[in-house]
Amino acid sequence: MKHIDFLSKATLVSTLALLLMLLAGCNRKPAENIIRVPVPARPAGQTDALGLTAEPIDTVRIGVVGLGMRGSEAVRRLGYIPGARITALCDLLPERVEASAALMREMGGPEAVGRYSGAQESWRGLCEQPDVDLVYICTDWLNHYPIAMYAMECGKHVAIEVPAALDLDEIWGLVNQCEKTRKHCMMLENCVYDFFEMTTLEMARRGVFGEVIHVEGAYCHNLDPFWDEYWNNWRLDYNQKVRGDVYPTHGIGPVCQVLNIHRGDRMTTLVSMDTKSFNGAKIASNHEGRPVTEFANGDETSTLIRTEKGKTLLIEHDVMTPRPYSRMYQVVGTDGYAAKYPIQQYCLRVDKPADQVDARHISDEKTYSGEELRALQEGYRNEILTPEFEELAKSVGGHGGMDFIMDYRLVYCLHHGLPLDMDVYDLAEWCAVAPLSRLSLENGSMPVEVPDFTRGAWNRLDGFRYAFAKGE
Amino acid sequence: MKHIDFLSKATLVSTLALLLMLLAGCNRKPAENIIRVPVPARPAGQTDALGLTAEPIDTVRIGVVGLGMRGSEAVRRLGYIPGARITALCDLLPERVEASAALMREMGGPEAVGRYSGAQESWRGLCEQPDVDLVYICTDWLNHYPIAMYAMECGKHVAIEVPAALDLDEIWGLVNQCEKTRKHCMMLENCVYDFFEMTTLEMARRGVFGEVIHVEGAYCHNLDPFWDEYWNNWRLDYNQKVRGDVYPTHGIGPVCQVLNIHRGDRMTTLVSMDTKSFNGAKIASNHEGRPVTEFANGDETSTLIRTEKGKTLLIEHDVMTPRPYSRMYQVVGTDGYAAKYPIQQYCLRVDKPADQVDARHISDEKTYSGEELRALQEGYRNEILTPEFEELAKSVGGHGGMDFIMDYRLVYCLHHGLPLDMDVYDLAEWCAVAPLSRLSLENGSMPVEVPDFTRGAWNRLDGFRYAFAKGE
Repeated sequence: MKHIDFLSKATLVSTLALLLMLLAGCNRKPAENIIRVPVPARPAGQTDALGLTAEPIDTVRIGVVGLGMRGSEAVRRLGYIPGARITALCDLLPERVEASAALMREMGGPEAVGRYSGAQESWRGLCEQPDVDLVYICTDWLNHYPIAMYAMECGKHVAIEVPAALDLDEIWGLVNQCEKTRKHCMMLENCVYDFFEMTTLEMARRGVFGEVIHVEGAYCHNLDPFWDEYWNNWRLDYNQKVRGDVYPTHGIGPVCQVLNIHRGDRMTTLVSMDTKSFNGAKIASNHEGRPVTEFANGDETSTLIRTEKGKTLLIEHDVMTPRPYSRMYQVVGTDGYAAKYPIQQYCLRVDKPADQVDARHISDEKTYSGEELRALQEGYRNEILTPEFEELAKSVGGHGGMDFIMDYRLVYCLHHGLPLDMDVYDLAEWCAVAPLSRLSLENGSMPVEVPDFTRGAWNRLDGFRYAFAKGE
Repeated sequence: MKHIDFLSKATLVSTLALLLMLLAGCNRKPAENIIRVPVPARPAGQTDALGLTAEPIDTVRIGVVGLGMRGSEAVRRLGYIPGARITALCDLLPERVEASAALMREMGGPEAVGRYSGAQESWRGLCEQPDVDLVYICTDWLNHYPIAMYAMECGKHVAIEVPAALDLDEIWGLVNQCEKTRKHCMMLENCVYDFFEMTTLEMARRGVFGEVIHVEGAYCHNLDPFWDEYWNNWRLDYNQKVRGDVYPTHGIGPVCQVLNIHRGDRMTTLVSMDTKSFNGAKIASNHEGRPVTEFANGDETSTLIRTEKGKTLLIEHDVMTPRPYSRMYQVVGTDGYAAKYPIQQYCLRVDKPADQVDARHISDEKTYSGEELRALQEGYRNEILTPEFEELAKSVGGHGGMDFIMDYRLVYCLHHGLPLDMDVYDLAEWCAVAPLSRLSLENGSMPVEVPDFTRGAWNRLDGFRYAFAKGE
């Protein structure tokens, strides 16, 4: 029986070991109800860039890269900005550089000192040019990131057209570069400067809507008439390759300001759902002259986001169907409501007559539109928008004036050494909708964690505010 | 060695058995990216109720249960419906039964034969009354289900106010009861009969919007002035206890008809996101005269749903904030767009002049509102709505006429032995948003499977259609 005892013990031990191993294998955590998105550790010696300021700049010398639809228009607008001077122009195509230089001459401005073109990376020369303080980037989406990174490396501030970054690696790259170099890295999100949005932001800051609990924003714009305008078909190509809300910033930017994102609240969870590609594939087929069946981007993409404080955002993207242009822009508050499309509306509580007040019926409500709306707005003029400045902005134009206001504020803040209206974390949060929505979509609309791009500082600032020079 | 061999073999066998057992235990599927919602097997001997018809009924004899806000108004409207006669009235409160009976007298109609009141289950008597063909249920939400189940058991058709069922058990209960008894079980979703929705449905069916790929619907209605109107505070209580979009049917009903849900497509995946309770808790606090901190229903709930054919629905619920009334009702198609709130709009492709056509630019687009919209609509009159009938509906009223059209169609189809415009699967799909959104919300906005309530028959009918008697 000795043999047997020995064997029994050995068997017992080995069986137990096996059991433990198997249990260990079994004990992998149950899959969570959310897709985790890791936050890379902040590199040593680097601090956050909240409220970042830089040395005041007397005349802000600007190098504009990318002189297509947006860039050539920026050159025109910047000619009207006091304290700004374009000192360099760059485009792959030399004729575009020449056209912008000619425009500057016509406008009576100074000759552009630096002209860069002809090679894919001609922009390196512009970034290296000593008398450039700010690199203003209006290229196709794919080139935003490398140019911005190099410009900051060269010690320049950067302003980048939307979307400034396309994936989480690029976003974290810009955040780190900004935190490291202490150069401003702003996305040129013009829609936060449109008039209804600016007035409504002012109303929200003054508490007119109570606590804002839900917001909506969108980019619904039939691009059918525009697809041919993009150099080398880059925009349709990008939509063909990439799923998700690839153009979220016009929709989310203005409503994030209202919600004080990373200024007291932060986005935590995102889910996204899209349609199949119906028109996208058809447009690509027309373009390529053969049936295109693979088209990644759904015609309509809808994204829901929840914040730390239990508020929600709805963001939509549709550039494929014939519909009225809309950025939605809707603000739902505990005491009031604002919406811009298709008509501007406010809805506010009004006090009930004293003899009709009861304990549970808080108030009546009143909807404002047309003349009544304009009268209401008069009491809430945005503090950066004096009547004279508004008039100037509308005369210079650029999407009705908002582009000019954006450029003006950028140059104003650089001139006075103030924090910019939009920082690199705004850029990060607004751009992140694209890769995060893609992640959700590719996992059957699973909820996805929204990283805290401030890495812990989202609750330090108390609400959105504009900076002003002392005495203004 | 014999012993050893024997033991070795025994050990080997037992170890292998253990291993297999453990692996089997281990082999529970990795958590999926979706919450599965089981579909109960169809009871033996029961078939689906698609296109269900019943014997024609000469005069449709109706018992109305629940004579509060909605029921008393239904009594008035039904008095105008040719071929309908109210033969029974029921409410917990006898004075309400008397008031409705008095109204019927005033309108010159027949005396209500049966009067039922005083007890919680007085409705049993009404369901059992022989000269009742249809039980028309307008009670609080919690009583819809037991009354409808018993009425069908008693061999009556049922029409149930929204929402007809509150959870998946109730929904499957009604589906099974309808399939088993072959009695009609329709939800009184009046909003599918509103004028803009009916015209737009007609346009969609005629292909004016191309393929409809995305739709939106909502119930955004500040109930602040109404909370006191609900008997025993049932509605606020229900919101306090239950999270999710608890009132989805007005929003989802009309757009499901446009999408041909269970008539060629079906909803497959749902995700939901809500805000915290801000105003809800405040209103409950005011009501109870003490601070209420537990309030389950978020002030704003947003739900996204995807269909088998890759289309999407957005459904919103907000009864807590001051805002303009809106059911959203938006239809996005490959060739056109419709939206009802805050102003009615269509947007359609228009042919480009021949000299401006190019391969990629499909068309220009044109937005219609105001007079142009009304002129466009004239070409797409809904087939159930003759000009004379529209005039009658508007004069009788009930939410502007749509309630009357709903009652009229219900009685018309019963009279002629036709399938109803809305079947028990519409009821199931539209009501299911409430429990499914709750399931998603309680799991951090996880995607949730939408059951196929037809159990395999969703693709048998080819599009939504109204039934008409022969020769009409």
